[in-house]
Amino acid sequence: MPDTIEETLSRTVHEQARLSRLAASSLAASSTDQRNRALGSIAVALDQHASRILEANAMDVQQARQSVESGEMSRALLNRLELNATKLRSLCSGIQQLATFPDPLNQVTLATDLDDGLTLSRVTCPIGLVGVIFESRPDALPQIVSLCVKSGNAIILKGGREAEHSNRVLVDVIRDAVAEEGISRDTIVLLESREEVAALLDADAHVDLIIPRGSNALVRHIQEHTRIPVLGHADGVCHVYVDSAGDRDKAVPIIIDSKVQYPAACNAVETLLVHIDVAPLLLPRLEEELVRLDVNIIADSRSMEYLSSANADAAKPDDWGHEFGDLVLAIKTVSTIDEAILHINRYGSRHTDSIVTDNDDAFQRFFAEVDSAGVFRNVSTRFSDGFRYGFGAEVGISTGKLHPRGPVGLDGLVTYKYKMEGNGHVAASYVGPNARPFLHRPVVR
Amino acid sequence: MPDTIEETLSRTVHEQARLSRLAASSLAASSTDQRNRALGSIAVALDQHASRILEANAMDVQQARQSVESGEMSRALLNRLELNATKLRSLCSGIQQLATFPDPLNQVTLATDLDDGLTLSRVTCPIGLVGVIFESRPDALPQIVSLCVKSGNAIILKGGREAEHSNRVLVDVIRDAVAEEGISRDTIVLLESREEVAALLDADAHVDLIIPRGSNALVRHIQEHTRIPVLGHADGVCHVYVDSAGDRDKAVPIIIDSKVQYPAACNAVETLLVHIDVAPLLLPRLEEELVRLDVNIIADSRSMEYLSSANADAAKPDDWGHEFGDLVLAIKTVSTIDEAILHINRYGSRHTDSIVTDNDDAFQRFFAEVDSAGVFRNVSTRFSDGFRYGFGAEVGISTGKLHPRGPVGLDGLVTYKYKMEGNGHVAASYVGPNARPFLHRPVVR
Repeated sequence: MPDTIEETLSRTVHEQARLSRLAASSLAASSTDQRNRALGSIAVALDQHASRILEANAMDVQQARQSVESGEMSRALLNRLELNATKLRSLCSGIQQLATFPDPLNQVTLATDLDDGLTLSRVTCPIGLVGVIFESRPDALPQIVSLCVKSGNAIILKGGREAEHSNRVLVDVIRDAVAEEGISRDTIVLLESREEVAALLDADAHVDLIIPRGSNALVRHIQEHTRIPVLGHADGVCHVYVDSAGDRDKAVPIIIDSKVQYPAACNAVETLLVHIDVAPLLLPRLEEELVRLDVNIIADSRSMEYLSSANADAAKPDDWGHEFGDLVLAIKTVSTIDEAILHINRYGSRHTDSIVTDNDDAFQRFFAEVDSAGVFRNVSTRFSDGFRYGFGAEVGISTGKLHPRGPVGLDGLVTYKYKMEGNGHVAASYVGPNARPFLHRPVVR
Repeated sequence: MPDTIEETLSRTVHEQARLSRLAASSLAASSTDQRNRALGSIAVALDQHASRILEANAMDVQQARQSVESGEMSRALLNRLELNATKLRSLCSGIQQLATFPDPLNQVTLATDLDDGLTLSRVTCPIGLVGVIFESRPDALPQIVSLCVKSGNAIILKGGREAEHSNRVLVDVIRDAVAEEGISRDTIVLLESREEVAALLDADAHVDLIIPRGSNALVRHIQEHTRIPVLGHADGVCHVYVDSAGDRDKAVPIIIDSKVQYPAACNAVETLLVHIDVAPLLLPRLEEELVRLDVNIIADSRSMEYLSSANADAAKPDDWGHEFGDLVLAIKTVSTIDEAILHINRYGSRHTDSIVTDNDDAFQRFFAEVDSAGVFRNVSTRFSDGFRYGFGAEVGISTGKLHPRGPVGLDGLVTYKYKMEGNGHVAASYVGPNARPFLHRPVVR
């Protein structure tokens, strides 16, 4: 077992992944108590080593300031990089809260007697070894690691170079903390170089899942360079559709919040679809608000009829489905809810789409036919988030169609295996002319 | 909407996939009753058109007989190809039974009030458009299609060339049957050429999931030639481990059934692991049975001490993890349960592994640490099967680590989307110094 990050780094990534996979097997057999105690131990250690962590973070921040001055880094990124005592305390209380959540492991989700004495059950279990490649925000690291410890998964991390010193100390502190509770240091490993990431993506014999958290380009690069399943999303092209039965008084604040509250977020709205019946009254009022908040408007010709050409540009075909990630909103007027659904399924990224309507049937159709991980009614798209969903935190937001989908908390970090217990039962007894029939009787628990 | 298979074939595969994806959206919004009535309609139609189906099948069988005579096809494959009135009747009753199963769609698996009037729920929904590439057994076609109809998924099928005539008539009859219940013919489409399969694997804009059912080589080829998620398994390397606390009277019939009942099946055992304490008494008795049943034995040096060299060959390193798919059993003696678990996780294919033991703690460790979709106790590995699990049938057996896993019936054919309903709620209210706190209160249903 390695004792310092330097020793760990000196091993090849594959050998480390092999050891981490073995450590994952032991973690899978750990008790609920042991994993919860480890979370408590992490929270205490982060608090005790706060000054060491903040000193390391100050080094990263100092380097980043130079990058901001030379124009290589944005001020927003610098703000996300910076830790302080308040952020650390809030992290610790989040981890302590996670320890009180129900155990996602060993949950029986199906139980059937196939015959007398022959019982099948489906039981949740960890995914195994998870590789997470994430960007500069260092407070994401303890959150992601804590979700993995709670769900019994080992984790290999690669953070951004900007947060190098912060991440190194954080992982050091966390590894010592879990080791105190008898959990192997190999369950939490930090990689530091790009070359190591390439080796990780190639370690499909040991790594069960890759979670990239970063730019669209990073996610696409990873999707194209590994055979390991990738959880997450490249694009976040979210829609708000204001239905003919939509309440304008609700619609305007929902659209503004979806666009303005954090325009760079993946769950911010990019395209607004407006039913032709509500466009004449809604659009002028919305325009006023958008202009006041410095939002650039791009609109199709039908919407243009209700907007001032001084405030709106004509939409080009590739504006639909484009993730602006900025204070830009594309607006399209549609004749029917069918047209809205078709547009969303064609140009959306299966992330989150919201309808503003007071008509239950309209929402029922929208919910059934819009093929996205989040399909909302009368609320902002910005609620699509693991913390807001009540998952404590999230390791990512998945737009994949197989489980997990949407913000991924503990439930998304476990899979299941089938358990069968019998007493010498053989399949041959249930085959042929004298076959015993199966009972297939649900087990009452 | 196309009316004949010929017209369908004349369209390009991508255009068909686009139409089938649209049909999938409508099917997702269909009622439980409509989908169950469609299943009833399929069962009636297969019965009514039995003679037409059997005539087409007779043409395939006639061609196949020539291939058997010229040595191009095995007799076992010919038997699997042949339909008869009894097989058809059993198919129809299976489909009628499926109609009585609970609807896997629109099940609420999580419901939380985030705030007063702001409710989040997670609701099961279809995966979308599924591509299935399967081998010669034509009775698999109505089973797979029925599972897809019940679970609201559209399906594009490609069967083996040996079953060309049978599959064409089956799909024709089934499409007419679902159309009678108002379900679009585009939800069920048959491809007939290899070129069309290549186009299907490339249609990742429309196809949500590929399910290959066939040889290891076919599955590997497909995995390497598509960006669409692939459900299934290439190898089936299953183990039986007889623990130190294993009952020999149970062990022998379990091993024999796991190996002999259908040696070509993916859930047949390939390697037997025996604890050193039970080897001296178990192995000679097992040898007698294996020899009587013409099973070839391959054994490591420790096992050889208890076997006659006339009946067993020395194991080579690449015999571990090899799928013999035949009457061949590799045997290895281990010193501890840890050694057995390590061997299975290293050489197994995460399919199904069974322990023979009367010790509860041993099974608890084996279940927690063996990383396979099925982890059994005191039963044959051959039970790993959708029909035997009580799923009615299966579209495949998944060794993937994300959902679904194991035999895939209705549960594995649905995913979920998050529903959020509010009344104009915006994210900004829950942020900043005067942030409203979230309730995160479970909804009692």
